[in-house]
Formats: sequence, C-alpha cells, structure tokens
Amino acid sequence: MPLILFAAPSLWPEYRDALPRAVAEAGIKAQIVTEAPPEQVDYIVYAPSSPLQDFTPYTRTKAVLNLWAGVERITGNPTLTQPLTRMVDPGLTEGMVEWVVGHTLRHHLGMDRHIVNPGHIWDPTCPPLARERPVTILGMGALGSACADALRALNFPVTGWSRSEKPGQLHGEDGLRQALSAAQILITLLPKTPETDSLLNAARLALLPQGAVILNPGRGALIDDDALLAALDRNIGHATLDVFRIEPLPQDHPFWTHPRVTVTPHIAADTRAITAARVIAENIRRGETGEPFLHLVDRARGY
Amino acid sequence: MPLILFAAPSLWPEYRDALPRAVAEAGIKAQIVTEAPPEQVDYIVYAPSSPLQDFTPYTRTKAVLNLWAGVERITGNPTLTQPLTRMVDPGLTEGMVEWVVGHTLRHHLGMDRHIVNPGHIWDPTCPPLARERPVTILGMGALGSACADALRALNFPVTGWSRSEKPGQLHGEDGLRQALSAAQILITLLPKTPETDSLLNAARLALLPQGAVILNPGRGALIDDDALLAALDRNIGHATLDVFRIEPLPQDHPFWTHPRVTVTPHIAADTRAITAARVIAENIRRGETGEPFLHLVDRARGY
Repeated sequence: MPLILFAAPSLWPEYRDALPRAVAEAGIKAQIVTEAPPEQVDYIVYAPSSPLQDFTPYTRTKAVLNLWAGVERITGNPTLTQPLTRMVDPGLTEGMVEWVVGHTLRHHLGMDRHIVNPGHIWDPTCPPLARERPVTILGMGALGSACADALRALNFPVTGWSRSEKPGQLHGEDGLRQALSAAQILITLLPKTPETDSLLNAARLALLPQGAVILNPGRGALIDDDALLAALDRNIGHATLDVFRIEPLPQDHPFWTHPRVTVTPHIAADTRAITAARVIAENIRRGETGEPFLHLVDRARGY
Repeated sequence: MPLILFAAPSLWPEYRDALPRAVAEAGIKAQIVTEAPPEQVDYIVYAPSSPLQDFTPYTRTKAVLNLWAGVERITGNPTLTQPLTRMVDPGLTEGMVEWVVGHTLRHHLGMDRHIVNPGHIWDPTCPPLARERPVTILGMGALGSACADALRALNFPVTGWSRSEKPGQLHGEDGLRQALSAAQILITLLPKTPETDSLLNAARLALLPQGAVILNPGRGALIDDDALLAALDRNIGHATLDVFRIEPLPQDHPFWTHPRVTVTPHIAADTRAITAARVIAENIRRGETGEPFLHLVDRARGY
C-alpha cells in the first residue's frame, strides 16, 4: 500500500476530504499522511510554498506531484531528482478561460467607459465584431490552447505563438514579431523560465499596434514593468494584469494608480481541490501500474 | 425586373453599395430606387424610422422587408397588409452574443471591483466556476438561442424560457417562476408585445435570488423601471441595461446615477449593412421564385 505524503500544510484543509476520495475513486488503496519518515514515502503531494525543500532523504519516492501549474520555484532545487509533475487541473483551465474570455470581451466591447460614465454620455457607436478584432496568444500550452479555442468559438481571429515549433502556430523571433504586430489584444500565457523573463521588453512592446491591450494572466516576470509603463504613454491602450513580480502587488507600485492599468489579484486560475485531487490520484494510479506520468516537467526546459 | 423601393433614407448611405451588390450576388436583376410611384413597387426595404407610414397605395408590393429585428412600431399599422419580414442578421446575432457573453462574464467574475478599486484592495478570493453559475434567458428565439449556445460552451448552466412551448425549455407562468427562481444572472431577450410589457414587474423581480444580476439587451419595455429600482434595494445585485423606454435615456433618469446600474447606449445588437443586405436579397430571391419568405412576422403574435 503506497504511502502518500501531503507536504503542503496550508492546503490540507481543502484536500483532507477531496484527496482520499479521489484516490479511492481511482481504485487505489493508499495511506495519506501529513508527516512520515522520508525513506518510507512513495509519493509527495507538493506546493511551491511547502516547507519541504530538501528531497535528498526521499529515496523511494516515485514522484513529486505539484498542486500548482507553476513550477519555477521548484525546478532549480538541486536536491529534487525525483520525477516532478505540474498540475493541469480542468477547473484551473476553466477558470483561466473565463478570465481571458471575459477580459478580452471587456476590452473588445469597451465596457469600462459604460461602467464608469460620470458624464452620462450616450454614445451609441457600436464596437466592431469579434471577427474584426485580432487576438494573439503567447504560449500555446494547455491553457493557451483552451483560451484560443474559446475565443475562436466567439469568432475572434486568434494567432498563437509558441516557444517550440507547433503546427499552425508562429514561433521563433520572426514569428514573435509577426504575432505582436498583428495583436489588437495580446494575451501572455507563457511559463516563467530564464528565457521568458521580460520577454515583453521595450523593443517588443513597441511592435504592438496603436491602442493594443495586454492581458497577462501568465506570470508577472514575462513583462518588464518599467517598459510597460513607458509604453502606456505611447502605443499601449490598456494593460489588465493578474500576476506580478511581487504579490500582493506593493501598495506603492505605479500599476495601482495608472488610469489604464487594471490589477486583478492573481485570480485568473486557481487550483480547485475537487478536480485537482483527481489529477493527483490519476498520477498515483499511473505510478502504481507503471504507466507514464501525466504533465511531467522537463527539467531542461524548466516547465 | 422587380422594382425595390429603399424607404429608409437615413440608412441609404450604409446600403447604397451593399444592397445592389447583395442583390446581384443573389442572381437577381432588379432596380433599386429611393423614390417610385407606389403602384409600381414590388418590394419595400423598410425601417421603423422610415417616413413611409401609409402602405395602402402599394398594391403590387410582395413584401415589406424590415432592416431592424424589432417590428413593434410597424405591426400596429392598419394600412400594412403586405407580408412583413423581420431582420435576422448574422452580424446582429454575433454582436448580441458578444455583448451578452461579455457582460455575463463581467458579473460572473466580479470585474467591476477590480476596474474601480480606489482602495487598492488585493483580495484573491476566486469567483466560482461558470459551471456553478446558473443563467436564465427569457426569450429563446434566434438571439436567445445563440446566446444560450455560447454561454453553454463556457460551461454556464443555462435555463431557457419561451412564451411558446419549445422542447427542452420552460414556458408558461409556472415555468417563468421556476426560471426566475434559479437565475443568478437573468438575460431578457423577449420581443416587445402587449404581453411582454413590464413582464419583469415587482412580483416577478421578487422571485430572483439574493444578489441576482439582470442583463437587458432586449427591449426597454420588458422591465417596469420603478419596480427594478425598488428591487435593487432588496434582492437585485446589479442591472446592466442596453435598452430603455425612452432613448437616449433621459439625463434625469435614476438609472444614470444608481451605483448598481450600468447603462450601455443600445449597442448590444446593431444591424450590419453587409450581412443584412444579404438577408434582404435572399428574401427578394425567394419572393421572385415563389419560395416562402424567411423571418416572416406573425401579426397575431406581433413578432
């Protein structure tokens, strides 16, 4: 009977019922504990905020199963030699799609001028149709692809750009220039890696068309904050940001007061215990039957 | 060669190129004019704002083809005995779906508190998923059905209510009570008829759950304004209204200043000349070949 160490104490209240139920539903008899002698642990359920940082003594552990989609705070840990999986939670994907589609439509329809309209201005100018509003998504993994599908279903012409070559998508530096130049609305959903840090720098922000809107539900580090603030005085019409280099966003950060920046408090994608527990249970089932793990992290790429 | 009278002078600049092109594309040789002897006119392209009000002399006219979806200002005209068609414009439907999905997601995600956040409050409470947010649509015609499809694609559980019995939808007074009681977000897309005037009165508004949001992109007369203002002090969380009994909404109307009412200036659905002209041309083609007209108005029902 495998021993599962739940190593994220702050999340235990959410998972204490959901995880045993999901494991049982996956047909696995297992013991789930919050403390155990390291050498007896078969699986570690983990979060980047977990106090556990030294994986050396976990000699029989078959996998470290992360509860978050982001793994950048773990992949640099030299003691972590066990297989590491990311969370790809259907609930998380749904929440991300809802945030992305919602804020895309908000900017597409120009809602803000109706939500805040102290002059009671009645201006019945219709927005263009979605089919006339090009959207670019940087990062076409599970989340980016789901957002692209939902936006295309609403007729938005979506251009996808990926760091690796994928059919039907742009890639490379030339592809990035093309993707940015076409984007009336730009959505950044790349993972945080050394290569994506400040991907949106001054030079690349300058490629966006006049009035372009940026939505960043991905990672705060994808954008050079100072370059974005400068670009808001030139070509960028608005930025709606859900993630930041420091969270909560410090009270003195200029994003809070800029009239064309909207801050949302890292709510675009939250792991939901019920659906996430099923993903963890499925990976434990796979570990027990010798099947390949889902959502295995490639250490070389960092995600 | 049929003679087509374009009787909506204010719309002529939009249609003077689009309509002849669409008619030619439909394979019809026709003469399109803005003035003609009534007894020679085969088809009238019409808008409720047209100066033409007496249809008596148009003795050979096969159909009056309305450029608007709403026909309530025409159906009461006793001189109009010719077949009357409504506009069901794919561009209009797309615009309506975008407005409805956008404002549904806006309220679902609680965007307003991030768009206007003077206290710089960082509260990372996630909204529920769309699958946990019941939506009701009153009126499941072409527009309501298209909105239901788009919302269901985003996982919202959608209840539809129609005035006539349709499979899979609620109807009748009992069905209306059930539809309202379940609605966290209520979308009103009924036509304006004597029966739908003030459909949302005090008694029916009281059936909505605490905090329910109303979106009205349909007709201003569907809602009793005073009853809505009173209900905003009780169970209604917010109302986002695109249509009003008097438009533009008068500057002294309390909707403008109510903190939980959003006014949008009748922009949810606009007829687009390119797509609408194709619908007109298709109906002229049908008239010439003896096929039944599309979107024929039932005078008894009033739409």
